[in-house]
Amino acid sequence: MNRNFPPHAGTAHEMAAAVAAGYSPARIAEDLIANIGTVDGQVRAFAYFDADELRARAENLPDGPLRGVTIAVKDVLLTRDMPTAHNSPRYEGSMPGIDAACVDTLRQAGALIAGKVTTSEFASTTVGPGTTNPHDARRTPGGSSSGSAAAVAAGLTALAIGTQTGGSTIRPASFCGVFGMKPTWNAISREGSKMYSATCDTIGLYARSAMDFELLADVFDFDVCDLPETLEGLRVGVTYGTTPEAADDDTRAAMDGAIANLQAAGATVVDLALPPDFDGILDAHHIILAREGASAFLNEVRSTPNIEEFFTRLVSQRPTAAAARSAYKKSDRCRALIDRMFEDDIDLILTPSATGVAPIGTGTGDPVFNAMWTLLQVPVINIPFHKTIDNLPVGVSFIGRRYDDRKLIRIARLIAEAPSEPLNTSSLTI
Amino acid sequence: MNRNFPPHAGTAHEMAAAVAAGYSPARIAEDLIANIGTVDGQVRAFAYFDADELRARAENLPDGPLRGVTIAVKDVLLTRDMPTAHNSPRYEGSMPGIDAACVDTLRQAGALIAGKVTTSEFASTTVGPGTTNPHDARRTPGGSSSGSAAAVAAGLTALAIGTQTGGSTIRPASFCGVFGMKPTWNAISREGSKMYSATCDTIGLYARSAMDFELLADVFDFDVCDLPETLEGLRVGVTYGTTPEAADDDTRAAMDGAIANLQAAGATVVDLALPPDFDGILDAHHIILAREGASAFLNEVRSTPNIEEFFTRLVSQRPTAAAARSAYKKSDRCRALIDRMFEDDIDLILTPSATGVAPIGTGTGDPVFNAMWTLLQVPVINIPFHKTIDNLPVGVSFIGRRYDDRKLIRIARLIAEAPSEPLNTSSLTI
Repeated sequence: MNRNFPPHAGTAHEMAAAVAAGYSPARIAEDLIANIGTVDGQVRAFAYFDADELRARAENLPDGPLRGVTIAVKDVLLTRDMPTAHNSPRYEGSMPGIDAACVDTLRQAGALIAGKVTTSEFASTTVGPGTTNPHDARRTPGGSSSGSAAAVAAGLTALAIGTQTGGSTIRPASFCGVFGMKPTWNAISREGSKMYSATCDTIGLYARSAMDFELLADVFDFDVCDLPETLEGLRVGVTYGTTPEAADDDTRAAMDGAIANLQAAGATVVDLALPPDFDGILDAHHIILAREGASAFLNEVRSTPNIEEFFTRLVSQRPTAAAARSAYKKSDRCRALIDRMFEDDIDLILTPSATGVAPIGTGTGDPVFNAMWTLLQVPVINIPFHKTIDNLPVGVSFIGRRYDDRKLIRIARLIAEAPSEPLNTSSLTI
Repeated sequence: MNRNFPPHAGTAHEMAAAVAAGYSPARIAEDLIANIGTVDGQVRAFAYFDADELRARAENLPDGPLRGVTIAVKDVLLTRDMPTAHNSPRYEGSMPGIDAACVDTLRQAGALIAGKVTTSEFASTTVGPGTTNPHDARRTPGGSSSGSAAAVAAGLTALAIGTQTGGSTIRPASFCGVFGMKPTWNAISREGSKMYSATCDTIGLYARSAMDFELLADVFDFDVCDLPETLEGLRVGVTYGTTPEAADDDTRAAMDGAIANLQAAGATVVDLALPPDFDGILDAHHIILAREGASAFLNEVRSTPNIEEFFTRLVSQRPTAAAARSAYKKSDRCRALIDRMFEDDIDLILTPSATGVAPIGTGTGDPVFNAMWTLLQVPVINIPFHKTIDNLPVGVSFIGRRYDDRKLIRIARLIAEAPSEPLNTSSLTI
């Protein structure tokens, strides 16, 4: 289904440079319209797309670092000029009239908002929205940010915005073979994103290169911090979290590839032993989501008699207050411990992004390798690091200290640009 | 300016009972329209009020525990049928087309949404919106929930919804002599409330009796917990927090009155010594607000060149990442310590709600006695407990354990209904 990706479907840097050199946003809009016609019938990444509205937006872009760069917006983020349906019957055609804070910021930077892309219902269930994986249409692109990952993987947009509460940004990035970033919690305002868990909801980013996250770090004003010039001497802790048995051979191959890469570049790779405080942290994540979700969806459950059972269960089977207090205490404690590890022992953590390749069917996969890091609120970047014999991508997660997002981006870029280059999205043949 | 409050301007319980007995919501709407005409010219609690829309809403209320009960909504909460302006020039006339989650829940319970009430800009600055204190028009009603507290104090509505990030619900309740409640963080979803600080933003409640919070606890599905039948034997810890010198004689008189009341009812009152971990907790609150506010208002600052300097400073003078990590660590630690105090030592904390009576002028007062508890995410109820020689109200704060909101409400009700009765809103002559 490809080989005819238009040339603009490269990275955000390439697209911004093309616009600066005179390639007009209007032409980028026409490229996108044509490309959606060719590709999106099968991928089905878009939940809402209007060619005339896109043309009008392209004529009215402010100057800025993202001028003309196409970006797909997950359909749980409010947009003032497009419906926001959350893949929920109640919100079909809902026109909120205001932008989510991150969408507002992207528009101000000149980004060309491409349209709304698919999500599992309220970015919460594990039932996919019907979007297919660009690498294999029988497979899920992952979720809940299904359309965001698929749009970037299919070369429809240079960038996409998603969200993550469990593993909703990183897992789809792994399944779709693109760069995905879950920044530090609240480094990007989550205002105007459908609420599930105030503790875990995080705005996520997708790109076709690690370098593109530098552009987004500027746009969103991430903290300045010291940046390494090389991977030489970098201390990397490797962990399979609390569920090593969940990783299959493909995931282990991706991890081994990443380790070999890091070692070849002079990094010191060690096994990271998580202290006993981390035992049960996935349960804590589950309890916090169930508690916060019960608050978040109370009004939806009451107003929507036929709502997906997932939500009625959240509200009716809420864990006890004592369980909540205990879960918050554990997660608070582990957050302090991770901070200390980054101060004393390591520069980077390496962990799987998913249990294996994208599964076949409507399920969006297992967030077991993502949930802990979401709860810990640390920044995570998925880098595509392996291709199976069937050409399916598998990524790994690199994790940094809270607010050291720019350092993590730099490291990801150094890894992606190292001589023994990992799988690079823009070289994918899909 | 009053004595002619219509009879319906009592408590939510009384109003719900009147409706159940046949007093129609249409009549309640007409009462409110007349009352606003009489009173709100001076109080200026309402930012948006439309009589015809109110009449239409009154004709279409679902059955529910709040059927026909009037409630004012702070103008930082989205409403699908009214503008949400946040007291910001950028949002003048903005029609979001969707409800904040709490507004949706209130509508489903049959509440009659009265209109939008004033706020300081984005519920963030300490510059009042021009609303006056119903007890003395020269004075502030407090802020940022200025209109919410004033509407209930002036007998315009039985209930009001506000928000609290520093002291924005409890302080106005004290200044206006009404019952105010900041529930446990996230016990009520804050979706659709303007974001300032994800860690501290909390939906707040106003009522004319402690009993009315029971109604709201049912509507918002607060956790069930053990409820005391009496104040006898209750262990109460008294603290002036980390800034005892900030309390003036009126506040001390209110605190002494509350202590006498509790002791008369058989409670054991002790001085609560905060562990050294609490030193600097107000700084931690300040840092977390400054950090989270810098994310939250980035898009507003970029889009609004003439925005109030408060916001540009938030974004340009953001504390360092190291300061943030340290502030989160301290607040996480203190949250665990407070949980333990409630497990082992005390049932209730008593602390001031404000430094004294409502100040004269446009400033909304000092949140120094509220900020720590907001950061700790514990439930707080203000009870009016003192009247100065000038008839100005002063309240005190009762504080419970996270998620034990119903226990705190019960205790507040027992205190309010104790023989040596505190100042009761509905008996105020203003």
